[in-house]
Amino acid sequence: MKISVVKNAGFCFGVKRAINLAFEAAKKSRTRVYTLGPLIHNPQVVEELKREGVLPIQNLNEIRKGTLIIRSHGIHPKVINEAKKKKLKIIDATCPFVRRAQEKARALYKDGYQVVVVGEAHHPEVQGIIGYTDGKAVVINQHSRNIAFTKNKRIGLIAQTTLNFDTFKKVVGRVLEKTWEIKIFNTICNATANAQKATLKMAKDVEVMVVVGGRNSANTTQLTKLCKEKGKPTYHIETESELKKKMFKSKKRIGVTAGTSTPEWIIKKVIEKISELTRK
Amino acid sequence: MKISVVKNAGFCFGVKRAINLAFEAAKKSRTRVYTLGPLIHNPQVVEELKREGVLPIQNLNEIRKGTLIIRSHGIHPKVINEAKKKKLKIIDATCPFVRRAQEKARALYKDGYQVVVVGEAHHPEVQGIIGYTDGKAVVINQHSRNIAFTKNKRIGLIAQTTLNFDTFKKVVGRVLEKTWEIKIFNTICNATANAQKATLKMAKDVEVMVVVGGRNSANTTQLTKLCKEKGKPTYHIETESELKKKMFKSKKRIGVTAGTSTPEWIIKKVIEKISELTRK
Repeated sequence: MKISVVKNAGFCFGVKRAINLAFEAAKKSRTRVYTLGPLIHNPQVVEELKREGVLPIQNLNEIRKGTLIIRSHGIHPKVINEAKKKKLKIIDATCPFVRRAQEKARALYKDGYQVVVVGEAHHPEVQGIIGYTDGKAVVINQHSRNIAFTKNKRIGLIAQTTLNFDTFKKVVGRVLEKTWEIKIFNTICNATANAQKATLKMAKDVEVMVVVGGRNSANTTQLTKLCKEKGKPTYHIETESELKKKMFKSKKRIGVTAGTSTPEWIIKKVIEKISELTRK
Repeated sequence: MKISVVKNAGFCFGVKRAINLAFEAAKKSRTRVYTLGPLIHNPQVVEELKREGVLPIQNLNEIRKGTLIIRSHGIHPKVINEAKKKKLKIIDATCPFVRRAQEKARALYKDGYQVVVVGEAHHPEVQGIIGYTDGKAVVINQHSRNIAFTKNKRIGLIAQTTLNFDTFKKVVGRVLEKTWEIKIFNTICNATANAQKATLKMAKDVEVMVVVGGRNSANTTQLTKLCKEKGKPTYHIETESELKKKMFKSKKRIGVTAGTSTPEWIIKKVIEKISELTRK
């Protein structure tokens, strides 16, 4: 029995940066430290942050003072303005790749393009990006039935940073059919793209895949979806406690991958548990 | 036995316009009338134009005075300058769709983009377009192995007007992988796109396809290629004289289509000849 782990699986640059900023704030700040929504889409890490004093809130109305960390997915600029009015101390942990997507959306909007975001409309990253176009951006994905652009409109297209590249290509092709002019910024982040490539490569060589990460994590869910689409038995788990012996029955080659918001210590525990379950 | 003809097969708007301009020039002009290369890519029409006094030349050096018609494919701007220096009378019969592609190429070039033309490098239309980028545009197509762009370059992409849309989509996808920023003008002309769609639709319903048009016509060759790719027996002919009885042996449904540079009188003769050959 062989367990293979995708190289560089786990925390990406943007997530590491956000977590470091949060821990640092918790250590140094004399006031309470908050995040609006979870800092990253991993419940276990969010629990650990809570223990260190970084508290997630749902709405700015819940607090009057303190330090507010803008989470890795970024946020609608009106929320930042609101926080400034409240005189909260702001620490911006927006992932630099998300920041770039926000900036490109704003630039396209200011240049008169109809901004189109390829991604999931309800994802906080996408919601934040829309804020940089005065709410005018349209969100589409591979499931959108009607892409109702007129041929006269100039389309400015960006992607949710965790989007699968093939999906991006397909949607770009469909938009191209509907318009004369289109400006595209490929805002898919390298870490996501590389993790997807490496995961798909591994999925070919193993009999079962285990994907570790938050159920609310878009990039982890995407990894699971890609493996399943390739017809590979795949389990999306958050922690080792969800692993069962029967998942690996008569399997000789097991692959493990993780989302970019999954900490190393969880991946390690998962590997240990799989070793234990598959030991004769 | 049923012969079906693709609706609107034959002359497109740009070709009609070029031919009208040429005949008008031949009638009104007091000097000789020339075209640099054939006015359109249909040998039979070019022969007819010759009889009316519109003479194709290969090089401006061949003439000293007279009227020069810029053909539907457009031309390198340096040739226009040369013609102006010679004080030739210039009639511009560049197809308005090609003109748009030239203008977009120039605009992208002036805006600092690396202009990329998706099409056939040696086609006169593409050669003309390149002229509007001071020769800096790169030509690629679905067969290009290396698309050697750096991630830092802003790519400005246009298509040869007769390109197949699916090919355009595929190439756009490949370029997207190689760059962060890309601005695309969909310069494929409607007539070409519609003729391709209608031809493919017909190819599904018949047993054999006859494609009528110049062998030097890019859009006619494209129609032939598309039908063959769908596994349909297909004959590309210039005139009815190339038709043989055996082509239609035991075929009950025959489809006819034509390039945008094919005149109606040739299509009619083809239909008559097929009727004759398939009569019992």
